[in-house]
Amino acid sequence: MKNFVSANDVTDINSLVQSALAYKANPLKNRSLGANKRVGLLFLNPSMRTRLSTQIAAQNLGAEAIVFNVDKEGWALEFEEEAIMSGNTVEHVKDAAPIMGKYFDILCIRTFPSLKNKEDDYSELYINQFIKYSGIPVVSLESATLHPLQSLTDVITITESLAGSGTMAGGGKFADAAVPAGSEGAVGAGSGRRPKIVLTWAPHVKALPQCVANSFAQWINAWGQTQKQIDFVITHPEDYELDEKFTKGATITHNQDQALKDADFVYVKNWSTYKDYGKIYCNDPEWMLTSEKLQLTNNAKVMHCLPVRRNVELSDEVLDSPASIVTLEASNRVWAAQAVLAEILRTKG
Amino acid sequence: MKNFVSANDVTDINSLVQSALAYKANPLKNRSLGANKRVGLLFLNPSMRTRLSTQIAAQNLGAEAIVFNVDKEGWALEFEEEAIMSGNTVEHVKDAAPIMGKYFDILCIRTFPSLKNKEDDYSELYINQFIKYSGIPVVSLESATLHPLQSLTDVITITESLAGSGTMAGGGKFADAAVPAGSEGAVGAGSGRRPKIVLTWAPHVKALPQCVANSFAQWINAWGQTQKQIDFVITHPEDYELDEKFTKGATITHNQDQALKDADFVYVKNWSTYKDYGKIYCNDPEWMLTSEKLQLTNNAKVMHCLPVRRNVELSDEVLDSPASIVTLEASNRVWAAQAVLAEILRTKG
Amino acid sequence: MKNFVSANDVTDINSLVQSALAYKANPLKNRSLGANKRVGLLFLNPSMRTRLSTQIAAQNLGAEAIVFNVDKEGWALEFEEEAIMSGNTVEHVKDAAPIMGKYFDILCIRTFPSLKNKEDDYSELYINQFIKYSGIPVVSLESATLHPLQSLTDVITITESLAGSGTMAGGGKFADAAVPAGSEGAVGAGSGRRPKIVLTWAPHVKALPQCVANSFAQWINAWGQTQKQIDFVITHPEDYELDEKFTKGATITHNQDQALKDADFVYVKNWSTYKDYGKIYCNDPEWMLTSEKLQLTNNAKVMHCLPVRRNVELSDEVLDSPASIVTLEASNRVWAAQAVLAEILRTKG
Repeated sequence: MKNFVSANDVTDINSLVQSALAYKANPLKNRSLGANKRVGLLFLNPSMRTRLSTQIAAQNLGAEAIVFNVDKEGWALEFEEEAIMSGNTVEHVKDAAPIMGKYFDILCIRTFPSLKNKEDDYSELYINQFIKYSGIPVVSLESATLHPLQSLTDVITITESLAGSGTMAGGGKFADAAVPAGSEGAVGAGSGRRPKIVLTWAPHVKALPQCVANSFAQWINAWGQTQKQIDFVITHPEDYELDEKFTKGATITHNQDQALKDADFVYVKNWSTYKDYGKIYCNDPEWMLTSEKLQLTNNAKVMHCLPVRRNVELSDEVLDSPASIVTLEASNRVWAAQAVLAEILRTKG
Repeated sequence: MKNFVSANDVTDINSLVQSALAYKANPLKNRSLGANKRVGLLFLNPSMRTRLSTQIAAQNLGAEAIVFNVDKEGWALEFEEEAIMSGNTVEHVKDAAPIMGKYFDILCIRTFPSLKNKEDDYSELYINQFIKYSGIPVVSLESATLHPLQSLTDVITITESLAGSGTMAGGGKFADAAVPAGSEGAVGAGSGRRPKIVLTWAPHVKALPQCVANSFAQWINAWGQTQKQIDFVITHPEDYELDEKFTKGATITHNQDQALKDADFVYVKNWSTYKDYGKIYCNDPEWMLTSEKLQLTNNAKVMHCLPVRRNVELSDEVLDSPASIVTLEASNRVWAAQAVLAEILRTKG
Repeated sequence: MKNFVSANDVTDINSLVQSALAYKANPLKNRSLGANKRVGLLFLNPSMRTRLSTQIAAQNLGAEAIVFNVDKEGWALEFEEEAIMSGNTVEHVKDAAPIMGKYFDILCIRTFPSLKNKEDDYSELYINQFIKYSGIPVVSLESATLHPLQSLTDVITITESLAGSGTMAGGGKFADAAVPAGSEGAVGAGSGRRPKIVLTWAPHVKALPQCVANSFAQWINAWGQTQKQIDFVITHPEDYELDEKFTKGATITHNQDQALKDADFVYVKNWSTYKDYGKIYCNDPEWMLTSEKLQLTNNAKVMHCLPVRRNVELSDEVLDSPASIVTLEASNRVWAAQAVLAEILRTKG
């Protein structure tokens, strides 16, 4: 693996998941892999879980992690080619990135979307410029349109939950895929019922990026849906369609109740509109996930990438119930990052 | 020791003081105690000495210290139960704290008072929510109403000064209590005259929390005054009474000159009003500690937690004289933090 | 070497350059020199390259590096003696610096000029107060008027380029001075033609400090010009004269074309006026370095300390050409810092 910015960078998702679960069982088992290596964590946008989990992952591998908040400790970067820099941007990525490439062995970076210009955001200019000019492996800590470390974490968490659940229909079979022993085993292979995973839109007070939703769709599709091993449903109000590039293969419906029916996992997330870009058309509180709605599901586990607006996106009742696995999910961020950094260090040699 | 947020968390203050002095003599003697442990330092308010000294203390014990400025690198946290989060707070402590509990072995955190709502501040909602939801030991780096690492440092510094002073009346006896050998020895036990410690209010330009004053009172009372081994006097202008919960046992007077008479230690600090909460009633420059006033004392050592407003709280003349032990005091912050972290690591196992 | 704030702190520049190049060849060769030492990196002004390179340099030597952004994580410092601190400054350097001296073994600090009061800026009050009151070695990460780590880096980069260039007229001879073997060899000694180094002013949109230009002049003069081994030319528009204290010995001209003729190195940098202090008199775009102008030179290498305003100071064409060595220059920052920290650690013992 050269870079990690999308599901497309991963040839075998299950293998990466098993690597992460092995680190979870034994965090310090590859303490020498990162010896005398330096991992730069650059943030052009704030972060808590991603920052801490990736820093910890690097340390677990014995590497030095250096955090640099470009937005606060540095200055505004320019990304446009041929820009005449007489405005507010102080340094061009063409000059900053090669130096990061000299200072670090791996560059982890968080960029962000404008939510104003769809073409610009979806071209992923910022992170691609860092890839182009740094000359070292780049790991996305969330970019303008995707959040692959979050999605890998989500697949890890679903795998773990499937393995741990003896009560879920077909759980025993799902478990085959999830235990470290059999990384070749496909998700839910051979079971009677495929696990049903639902991504549901939720209300929010701000216009948020589509990153987490796009990325979850891309990974769930790549992981299992295309092989018809997962029943993947996306539900949202009218006009909140995501980019088909990521959702293709999923069942899409505007009927949340129908989507939730018999779900094994419910992934809750707000996003702003994609077509008429970056808008809030509807903020319908009816879309908040409540305990009542959860009763439609197959005793589903509830997921969210956090931070979450309580009693706006999800009710306290749900978040404080055993159905919520958001803390497990967030804690798995460490193992996802560790598996990715380790894979890159091994590739890089 | 499970948490460290108040003097009440410590069963034997003298023993903790001796542990700190032993680290001062040999900073790296427990280099393996913190091996593969991670200490999170979360700041909801800015800090210099506390941040640096605690980070150094963790490193001295061989632990990884990760600093995260929540106020600058992260976002606004919500602390109220059942909040409908449609306002400015982005994440609830109920979601953030459990994840800190997964990422770290010890959580050190600085919170702050509103200075607007006394009941809220004195309930210590913020730090208590972190204790409740993180599931790991919590160390206060200053909370809404207390600053225990500062106060432990102050007791260490007084102990050290008593031990080092042969000229002070009764100094030899005081020294018995302070040398590492005899941690069972009570302060000044058996001496003719008890050391006199004075906490004096000082003018300031801003309304400041009561934390340092409350905490100093709580610790000095817990350390010695209740056993009548210390003569503890608090002096401040009318209307600046502190919470009796912390001051009970001390002599309280509005006459600064009388308080300073024969003092061995003068602790200078501003605080805003407690009763009619968070106000500045009086900013009387007569309360600034000057060399002239120091002549009333028994050649007293002058202490301050820093930062100090020179020539407002204390005159240059005092701060630049040998009477001032503020640098010694600040440097002892490292050993206080190291003793506390070590004690928690030992308890936690 | 006790402190490192100016070329005057260095007795043998060539020896320091060779030390840096030896670290470049073998970054971890002195891993134990900094063991159990702590290097504080304090920033009163933002930084990217300086922050990262110095942090990496300290880590390469096995030392702990702690970064503290005083301007963002802390509060405003007071530097004036006898100040009555009833305004916005929260802590006096007289109180903060001695504590840094207790917490750290070496204090690296970035201060900045007001660009309003020349006498104040050129007195270097801020960094001198840290030297006076910290009691430990101080390394400048750029001060009000100088940037010595940048200038040492520049001399390293020029030395390296001279050594590596077989095509440059006299290159072979220059190389004698630059290879690690002969640190006693003076620059270009014995060659037919002296290398020509040109510092040229460039347009900018903001009034910038004179630090980098002052410092480059000071170091190039100290390194070689005084021995007539370098042909050092400074060119700028009228009214942009620098302080003679630093430039004395260089040829100064307002004719950029004439200056560039046959140059081997062109150092591009904007600065604001020195005489009528801190102003922008002229922002003439004609002064931007272009490929066309470069043709006047002897196939010169182009240098800039970065960040650079593309197509304002330098054209894309130049920066993206093989003539530009700005990335090499920035990457050498690590070895300059490492040589300086190592030298101070050895002196300090």
